[in-house]
Amino acid sequence: MKALNPVEFIKGLYGIIDGKVHLPESQKENPVLQVLLRRRSVRKFKKEDIPEDVFRVILEAARVAPCAINLQSWVLGIYNQDTWKKTFGRSIPFDAPRAVMVMGDIHRTRGVINEISHYPLVEYTLAVMNASIAAYAMNIAAESCGVASVMLSETGKSGFYDAKYLKKKLNLPDGVFPILTIVFGFPKGKPLAMPPKLPIEEITFSEKYKETDRDTMKEWLNQMIAGYRAWRITDSFQNQVKRYVERAGAAEENLNRLVFYNPEE
Amino acid sequence: MKALNPVEFIKGLYGIIDGKVHLPESQKENPVLQVLLRRRSVRKFKKEDIPEDVFRVILEAARVAPCAINLQSWVLGIYNQDTWKKTFGRSIPFDAPRAVMVMGDIHRTRGVINEISHYPLVEYTLAVMNASIAAYAMNIAAESCGVASVMLSETGKSGFYDAKYLKKKLNLPDGVFPILTIVFGFPKGKPLAMPPKLPIEEITFSEKYKETDRDTMKEWLNQMIAGYRAWRITDSFQNQVKRYVERAGAAEENLNRLVFYNPEE
Repeated sequence: MKALNPVEFIKGLYGIIDGKVHLPESQKENPVLQVLLRRRSVRKFKKEDIPEDVFRVILEAARVAPCAINLQSWVLGIYNQDTWKKTFGRSIPFDAPRAVMVMGDIHRTRGVINEISHYPLVEYTLAVMNASIAAYAMNIAAESCGVASVMLSETGKSGFYDAKYLKKKLNLPDGVFPILTIVFGFPKGKPLAMPPKLPIEEITFSEKYKETDRDTMKEWLNQMIAGYRAWRITDSFQNQVKRYVERAGAAEENLNRLVFYNPEE
Repeated sequence: MKALNPVEFIKGLYGIIDGKVHLPESQKENPVLQVLLRRRSVRKFKKEDIPEDVFRVILEAARVAPCAINLQSWVLGIYNQDTWKKTFGRSIPFDAPRAVMVMGDIHRTRGVINEISHYPLVEYTLAVMNASIAAYAMNIAAESCGVASVMLSETGKSGFYDAKYLKKKLNLPDGVFPILTIVFGFPKGKPLAMPPKLPIEEITFSEKYKETDRDTMKEWLNQMIAGYRAWRITDSFQNQVKRYVERAGAAEENLNRLVFYNPEE
């Protein structure tokens, strides 16, 4: 992945700014679509805590989220700044006042439904799927109450990248898989522009699989690189990818142990 | 898993009917929470098709859903009754007018970001996570437009349980993983009661992992069994679990091939 020349940089930035969401005339007043389409991931929070009733209804949205066989195959670790610090010895990422760690949990139902035995990848897929849906339910519920949030899977050792570390820290039994942490708080400042999204035509197909247009992908990549350079002065998209790749080997090994129940060496 | 005696059955049913969602006074008028907390999975649809602009904004909600490193690591197969029949030789499950098959897709970005190489479980986790979030975005967007839907992972050979079959049918390249299908339509009749959900206290913990109360789990299980017996005369929860278990061995083998790129025997 190479750096951009000035023309590519300007074109990339323009592409981001030009990227619009499409809300049809018939749904212009739909408040749910407003939240779904305008929600932004936020990484700057005020010190102010979230009211207890609002935090509770965010959890409630996860509780009633749809899930395969209604198994609710997730568990939520809930933290404020004190309990996070006590557990992990540092602050919640981005100094947010609240955090919810979302984990797949197939351990819980094993206690009562013995028929679902250990098919590791089937169970893991079900758990990741259900837990991710519950996570996004909280993300949207929060947004609708004016509470901003961001989902983290690698940042701050709080997602599936650090499953082994988290299993130890939280005494997780087999069949519990850390996936991501959402941190919540009232937003500080204006949100960043939406990162570049591929057009609907490139992320869908009808009937058989269709390859994405290569030029569109290159354009998207240039927009990603330009966006990082413009809005995160101290970071770059290349660095972000590098961070993921550098730790991918260790993450892979840990996931393998976790999913297939291979004991520690 | 045993059948219920009449007292357990009545108690189970009562438990379901008594199960309420909790919306705080301060958020009573929040239209997004109304949709998130009252959304039901629907399996009976009118013949009437969904307007094109509404279907399009449902896809738009997926397009802008949050995702790790903004990779949009999913692809959507979109179908109406004709194209589904042409592709699969049968009707869309529950005779819904539209279907979207949601697949994890890490094949697309490999073309432009070569630094993210093949770490199978890391990539699979990222893909399932991102794709599940996009799926739920469509579920909620639809609901907000008066369109009902249900997510299927095993029913009708349209989810991860039948990954091998779907890979062949849709010419999926390596790095594309079928996860679930959502079928959409206008709802016919009244929705079923919400299936029993465990209380917030049982699906959360603070600081360290906490085992779920065994009696609460047994109560939940009885409610599941009673609910199936009451609302789906021709089915039972025991049968539903049996269907999953019977096919779990084959599903596991296929997932293993798909995730770790082991060629066919």
